[in-house]
Amino acid sequence: MAKGSSCFFKQRIVATGPTPVPDFVLTAEMSSVFYHRGPAFAAIMESVKKSLPKVFGTSGEVLMFAGTGTLAMEGAIANFFNAGDAVISVNAGKFGERWGQQAKVYGLKVHEIKVERGHAVKVDEVARLLEQNPDVRGVLIHASETSTGVRHPVKEIAALAKNAKDCLTLVDGVTALGVFQVPMDDWGVDVLVGGSQKGFMLPPGLSFGAASARAWARTESVKSVRYYLDWRKERKALAENSGAFTSPVTLIGGLKAALDYFEAEGLYNVYARNWKMTAATRAAAKAMGFELFVKDESSVSSACTAILAEGLYAGEIRKRYGLTMSGGQDELKGKIVRVGHMGYIDAWDVANQLQAIARVAPHFNKKVDGAAGMEAFWKVVESAEDFTPAEFKGWPK
Amino acid sequence: MAKGSSCFFKQRIVATGPTPVPDFVLTAEMSSVFYHRGPAFAAIMESVKKSLPKVFGTSGEVLMFAGTGTLAMEGAIANFFNAGDAVISVNAGKFGERWGQQAKVYGLKVHEIKVERGHAVKVDEVARLLEQNPDVRGVLIHASETSTGVRHPVKEIAALAKNAKDCLTLVDGVTALGVFQVPMDDWGVDVLVGGSQKGFMLPPGLSFGAASARAWARTESVKSVRYYLDWRKERKALAENSGAFTSPVTLIGGLKAALDYFEAEGLYNVYARNWKMTAATRAAAKAMGFELFVKDESSVSSACTAILAEGLYAGEIRKRYGLTMSGGQDELKGKIVRVGHMGYIDAWDVANQLQAIARVAPHFNKKVDGAAGMEAFWKVVESAEDFTPAEFKGWPK
Repeated sequence: MAKGSSCFFKQRIVATGPTPVPDFVLTAEMSSVFYHRGPAFAAIMESVKKSLPKVFGTSGEVLMFAGTGTLAMEGAIANFFNAGDAVISVNAGKFGERWGQQAKVYGLKVHEIKVERGHAVKVDEVARLLEQNPDVRGVLIHASETSTGVRHPVKEIAALAKNAKDCLTLVDGVTALGVFQVPMDDWGVDVLVGGSQKGFMLPPGLSFGAASARAWARTESVKSVRYYLDWRKERKALAENSGAFTSPVTLIGGLKAALDYFEAEGLYNVYARNWKMTAATRAAAKAMGFELFVKDESSVSSACTAILAEGLYAGEIRKRYGLTMSGGQDELKGKIVRVGHMGYIDAWDVANQLQAIARVAPHFNKKVDGAAGMEAFWKVVESAEDFTPAEFKGWPK
Repeated sequence: MAKGSSCFFKQRIVATGPTPVPDFVLTAEMSSVFYHRGPAFAAIMESVKKSLPKVFGTSGEVLMFAGTGTLAMEGAIANFFNAGDAVISVNAGKFGERWGQQAKVYGLKVHEIKVERGHAVKVDEVARLLEQNPDVRGVLIHASETSTGVRHPVKEIAALAKNAKDCLTLVDGVTALGVFQVPMDDWGVDVLVGGSQKGFMLPPGLSFGAASARAWARTESVKSVRYYLDWRKERKALAENSGAFTSPVTLIGGLKAALDYFEAEGLYNVYARNWKMTAATRAAAKAMGFELFVKDESSVSSACTAILAEGLYAGEIRKRYGLTMSGGQDELKGKIVRVGHMGYIDAWDVANQLQAIARVAPHFNKKVDGAAGMEAFWKVVESAEDFTPAEFKGWPK
C-alpha cells in the first residue's frame, strides 16, 4: 500500500502470469530443500513423473528444466531442427513472434504467418503454406497466445502437419497447460512446452517439455549446438528420478503439491472453472459496454480475456487499486487491458479486476455500466451450466 | 472450493477474528524458531518491548502471555482483585458477558450493567452505580464489543473511576488494539488487555496485558490463586527480555514483524484506514437498503460493522462465496451479519463481503440495491477525507 495514505490496497497478483501461488504450494516448496541426488527428492520426482504427463495428455515423459518458458521454447527448436530447416511460425502476438525469432537465431528458414492481433490463425493458411513448401519440417504454434487471449486451432493444424512429409507440430502451452485441454497424444502434437508460473500456480523458474516418438527419433540427427538445452540428457536423468543438472528442488516440490491439488480437484473441474470464468468475464465486459478483443467465440482462450480499452492503462489500476493487472504489450500498449483468470484465481479475484476496470474507465473518458457488468458476471458464475467448449467436454475423464 | 463444482472460491478469512495473517508475518514466524532463553530471541523481545507499548499508548511495559485473549482477561481479574471485591461489569455483548462470568468465578461481587445489544453503555449509568456502591474496586469494560461492533466511552468511564475511591478501570482491547486509538496513559486506563488474532494480524495464541502504577501497587495485596496467571512473574522476566515460562517464540517473532509494519506505515495511518473502511461500509449498507445495528455514530467501532439482516446466515455466504464472514452470536444468531474491517483486510476484502451480502440477500427475501451499495462504498474509499472521529484526530502522532 501507499504509505501515508488513509486507504489500503494489498498488492494482489492477478496478472496473466505470474499467477498467485497458493499457500499449499509455498509450504511444499519450503519442505523440499532436499539434496538433488538423494532419496527424498527422488521420491518427489517419482510422483511428479506419474502425474505431470496427465496434464500434457501424453503417455510419454515430461521433462523439467531449471529456466523459464522461453528456455523450453528454445529447447524445442534446438533439439528437433537443424540450421537450414524450414518451419512455419504462427505469429499472432508477442509470444508467437518470440518463437519465430528463436528459430531464426538457430538458423532456421522461417515462414512466418503474421496474424492480425486478436484473431486465431486460419487453418487454410497453414495448409496453403505447407502445400507450397514441402520442405517444411515443423509448425510452431501457441495453444494460447497470452498477449491477446487467443486460442489457435492446434488440433486441426497438428492433423495437417501429420499428413505432410516429416513435419512436426510444436506447441507452446505456457498459458494452456493446467488451464485448458491440450490432449497432446490424441491430437498428434509432437512437442509441447510449458512454464511454471501460469496454470501450474508456481513461481517462475521451472519449465517443461514433452516430445512424441517421432520427435525423439529425429533428435539424434540434429546437430545444433546444445548442452544445457539437450533434452536427451534430461530424459536419461528422469528415468532415474533425477535431473541432468542441479534440479530446482523447491520448485519441483511445489509442483508436486500443485499436481496433487489437480488430482484432488479433478483436472476437468479445474479446466471447467476457467472456462466458466472466461464466459463470466466476457459477459461482464460486454454488459459494461466494452468491446472484446477476441470476437470469435471459437478462438477464445481461458487463460485471460483482453478488453479493448484505448488509453486505459493497467498501470493505473495497479496504482489505484493494488491489482497487478496486465495491459497490452508492444503495439497493443494502451489499447487493451487483460483480465487474468488462470491458476489460483477465484471468482472474487476476477470480479475485482472487472470492478477496477469499471472504476478507472471514467478517468479515461469511457462511460461504462459497472453494475450491469457485475450482474452479468455473477449470473454466469452462479449458473449450473458447464461452459467447456463442446470439443473439450469430457476430457480428461 | 467445493470439489466437483465448476465454480471456484478460495476460503478467505474475512472474519471478525482471526483476521488474515500477512505473508511478512508468516515468514517472520518461520524465521523465529529460537531457543526461548537464547540471545536471538532476546533480541526480538528487546525490539517488541519498545514498540508494543506504543500501540497501548503507555510508557509502562506490556506483558505477553501464551494463551488467547480470554486468558489475558482472566489475568486482569486474578491479579488485581480479591474474592469479595465489588466490580461493575459492562455487558453489551458476548464478550462483556464473558468478563463478568470470569469475575464471578473468582468470587467477585459483580454489578452487571446489561446494555441493549447494539448500544454503548451510558456514562450516567456507570456514574450512578459508582455513587450507589462506594465499595466498587473496578470497572470492567470493552473498548470494542466485537459481537456487535459497539465502541464504549472508555475515556469518560476511566475519568469517573479515577474520581471514585480506589477504583481501577480495566479495558478489554482485543478488537481495539492495533485497530483504533486506546491511549491508555492519556485516559487513565489501569489495565488494558489484548489478543493477537485481530488488529495485530497474527494467528491466535498470544495475548497481552498492561497495567498502571496504581494497578501494580494493588497486585501485592491480592491473594487470588494464580501461578501461570501471575503477571508479576511475566513482568520480572520481561525486564530480562524473556518470558516467565516457555515463550511462544514464533508468535512473538511474527508480532515483531507486525509492529515493524505499524512503524513503517505509521500507526495513525493504520487506524485512519480502518475508520475509512468503517465509514465506507456503513454508507454501503445504508445505500443497499439495510439497517445498521449500531445506529449512534459516536458508538461505532472500526473493528467490524454489524448489519441487521434477519434470517441471513453468514454460514450461507461462506458456503456460496468462500468468505468466512461472521454472523450474530447467541441471541443475535440469524439476526445480524458482521463485516470485518480490521487487521490485514483491504478495500477489496471489504467490498467483497458487501457484495456477497447483496447477492445472498434475495435468498432470504430481502430486496437490496447492491449496485448503489458499491457506489457508496467506493465513493468513501476514493475520497481524500480523513474519517477518524474528532476525538482521535492526530493521535498517535
